[in-house]
Amino acid sequence: MSKGITSRGEDYSQWYNDLVVKADLAEHSAVRGCMVIKPYGYAIWERMQAVLDKRFKETGHSNAYFPLFIPKSFFSKEASHVEGFATECAVVTHYRLKNDGTGNIIVDEEAKLEEELIVRPTSETIIWNTYRGWVESYRDLPILVNQWANVVRWEMRTRLFLRTAEFLWQEGHTAHATEAEAIEEAERMLDVYAEFAEGTLAVPVIRGRKTENERFAGALDTYCIEALMQDGKALQAGTSHFLGQNFAKAFDVKFTSKEGKLDHVWATSWGVSTRLMGALIMAHSDDQGLVLPPKLAPIQIVIVPIFRTEEEKQAIDNYVDALSSELKGRDISVKYDDRDTQRPGFKFAEWELKGVPLRIALGARDMANGTVELARRDNQTKETVSQEGLADYVVALLDEIQEAIYTKALTFRDEHITPVESYDEFKSVLDGKGGFVSCHWDGTVETEKRVKEETKATIRCIPLDVKEEEGICIFTGKPSRHRVLFAKAY
Amino acid sequence: MSKGITSRGEDYSQWYNDLVVKADLAEHSAVRGCMVIKPYGYAIWERMQAVLDKRFKETGHSNAYFPLFIPKSFFSKEASHVEGFATECAVVTHYRLKNDGTGNIIVDEEAKLEEELIVRPTSETIIWNTYRGWVESYRDLPILVNQWANVVRWEMRTRLFLRTAEFLWQEGHTAHATEAEAIEEAERMLDVYAEFAEGTLAVPVIRGRKTENERFAGALDTYCIEALMQDGKALQAGTSHFLGQNFAKAFDVKFTSKEGKLDHVWATSWGVSTRLMGALIMAHSDDQGLVLPPKLAPIQIVIVPIFRTEEEKQAIDNYVDALSSELKGRDISVKYDDRDTQRPGFKFAEWELKGVPLRIALGARDMANGTVELARRDNQTKETVSQEGLADYVVALLDEIQEAIYTKALTFRDEHITPVESYDEFKSVLDGKGGFVSCHWDGTVETEKRVKEETKATIRCIPLDVKEEEGICIFTGKPSRHRVLFAKAY
Repeated sequence: MSKGITSRGEDYSQWYNDLVVKADLAEHSAVRGCMVIKPYGYAIWERMQAVLDKRFKETGHSNAYFPLFIPKSFFSKEASHVEGFATECAVVTHYRLKNDGTGNIIVDEEAKLEEELIVRPTSETIIWNTYRGWVESYRDLPILVNQWANVVRWEMRTRLFLRTAEFLWQEGHTAHATEAEAIEEAERMLDVYAEFAEGTLAVPVIRGRKTENERFAGALDTYCIEALMQDGKALQAGTSHFLGQNFAKAFDVKFTSKEGKLDHVWATSWGVSTRLMGALIMAHSDDQGLVLPPKLAPIQIVIVPIFRTEEEKQAIDNYVDALSSELKGRDISVKYDDRDTQRPGFKFAEWELKGVPLRIALGARDMANGTVELARRDNQTKETVSQEGLADYVVALLDEIQEAIYTKALTFRDEHITPVESYDEFKSVLDGKGGFVSCHWDGTVETEKRVKEETKATIRCIPLDVKEEEGICIFTGKPSRHRVLFAKAY
Repeated sequence: MSKGITSRGEDYSQWYNDLVVKADLAEHSAVRGCMVIKPYGYAIWERMQAVLDKRFKETGHSNAYFPLFIPKSFFSKEASHVEGFATECAVVTHYRLKNDGTGNIIVDEEAKLEEELIVRPTSETIIWNTYRGWVESYRDLPILVNQWANVVRWEMRTRLFLRTAEFLWQEGHTAHATEAEAIEEAERMLDVYAEFAEGTLAVPVIRGRKTENERFAGALDTYCIEALMQDGKALQAGTSHFLGQNFAKAFDVKFTSKEGKLDHVWATSWGVSTRLMGALIMAHSDDQGLVLPPKLAPIQIVIVPIFRTEEEKQAIDNYVDALSSELKGRDISVKYDDRDTQRPGFKFAEWELKGVPLRIALGARDMANGTVELARRDNQTKETVSQEGLADYVVALLDEIQEAIYTKALTFRDEHITPVESYDEFKSVLDGKGGFVSCHWDGTVETEKRVKEETKATIRCIPLDVKEEEGICIFTGKPSRHRVLFAKAY
């Protein structure tokens, strides 16, 4: 098959767009900025959801569901929050269409809402308005709730998965009796995200804090995990916010403490979205197509028979039946691609494009020798191995592949964290190999903005493990106490 | 604890409303007609989703995701479809808010959409517009796709779970090369729903076809499952539609057949929603609270310790630890309610309200005797049983409870299908014990509408297993070839 994918070297951005469409992950819809997530792409997202949902429950959270719509007035109750979202939200103004008498369907102006509704861009406001009814005393706390939902942010420039007007995500919203407990929760969920990114997506991440400028609208502190893509640009892969008492104050959510004192509740929120699909694709894939870590691959092993006669096919079928059952019994997802409409070479290319981690091919000679040919997607190596003990072998190999994909990304990432001491050096790294630039900064929003204007780089985070170190800001020469990480970002 | 639930005898409708709120299933939100599904209610919905999703996949379907918004023009392409939904849809007209200069947040009139967007009330139009790009030849068929999503229908009179402006559901949308295959699919999915309703929800259902009048807007045939609630009203618990080539024609979806002929694709769609939560509650619950079938109960067994001293508590704790592990190992969800802030009687009432199928209570005397007290939620019986072999015993008992709940509902339902031969008899049954009334009808929309106006009863379905039988319409006296089922319905 002809893959029709631009190479990364030629045009990284076009390579990404081609790959998302050709690998059947997603496509643009007829609605501006909204995507269709196709079955193969959605199957990967479902695997992400399953792993995350399990971790959320293990850490004490329950799922719930809150309205899609937010009254405009709620939206305005937290000042910085409305500023952050007002310029990009879908507004519902009417609740009925009608026939205009000539057969045209038009909006029925008589069915105008008294108060406009905003399609949620995030749910802090509607949720905190609800929590007011759930909390009276410290006994009602903590509330540890998560929601899987669609949200809408009317982005003007969209890209499949990375930036779409509608996207899918989860948003955790928790309520606590103390500041310390809320901060602990925000940090715990950042760890859950980081472990998920590294252990499941095989994407190494830097855990850090956002600067004031890059904080979530309404947060006192935004924790984030930052990943690095193959083109040297960073991607924020998840955020966890300590919201202080801002939303509790805006929505009057108070509780009586053990000591009988009335106080506002402390809050966190945290989320990851279908953007992770973009991170997954850009971190690992190559010019041949997707490279999926085994833990997320909807098909982990594809088996392709190579035969000339029906008799040969029959012998292979029998063997594959037994092998498939054995692998399924170990929770390996296997596909036997015995279509007679396509040649093996076409099938190899198709499954390569779709990122299936391991391919087993076998023909008459293999059957005679008691072997199969194993091909790894990640490093494109092939080997001939015995059919005896094959299930054990491939189960271990899938783990090895998961690890190898992570290690490769980690090596790349680590090679792309560059300490610099001057603004010239800073610009030269950004224009050259890219990646994270580690440098001193004077701590002001003003400097951050000017650097962004001049170089497009932003402060991705102040790493949680940052070291105290005297230095001077590369831009202003003012004193600084620690480094931060700049990068161009998605 | 005081439950604060109206009794069914006093006011069935109020009983339902009280129960939904008091058992922590859902509550009204600040947005007209939209509900908040609380963690306990959502946990039940998640169990429904898990069982259905597994069945969808076993029957060859994959999940995908399509946009929340539908361009107004799409919506109008299928004539009967737009008629069915135009009068109750949320319309997005703008994509930005702004500060009016005095601090008020208002809709930015400059950010008006060129074409209004409808928040999906169902997704046939946007999905069939997408399928046009997916289908060229018979090799691309069938498409077997399902979507889990939120939808909005601007209902004027809403009730939690039963009728809300926004609700959660799944919608399957399949595309086929032949009419026969599409009909087979629609019937297969009706069977999946019926088996789910009976086997998991423990709600017996009648499988049937809707009359023309009650068909889905755009369908050639609507299959349905109809359940009976304890107040004698029917509830449509799921529908599966054979859409013919209506949507393929409206969206120009054609394929080349094996024989090289160009033809429009055949379609089905099928869905169930959070309405099932309403069916579940109204079919089984009683004046003491929820009655949940074990297969859907978020907590299947609650264990309540009864003790006076710390020493007694310690002995019970040790035993419960071991028992809980054993039960969890068998996939039983267990809660040990050892709160020291509430008395056992309070806990008994609370878990009764929440419908936990089985309660184990044990005190010092039980520990001495090697027994526990088992209380069944469904029939309110108690027994003292040995601690030896307890895990085996309760696992079997949970199955028995599942079966008993179903049998009780089935007996009730069967007692409430009444054949009648005259309109007087018809009205007297409807005003009396209610339920399904089986009678002859002349097959006209006109008669159906008049009966509805006079009695509020509608034809719930023509049962799939209906027998050919000569008779006369109870309303017009015209000839009829088979009976139909009328009922008042939710």
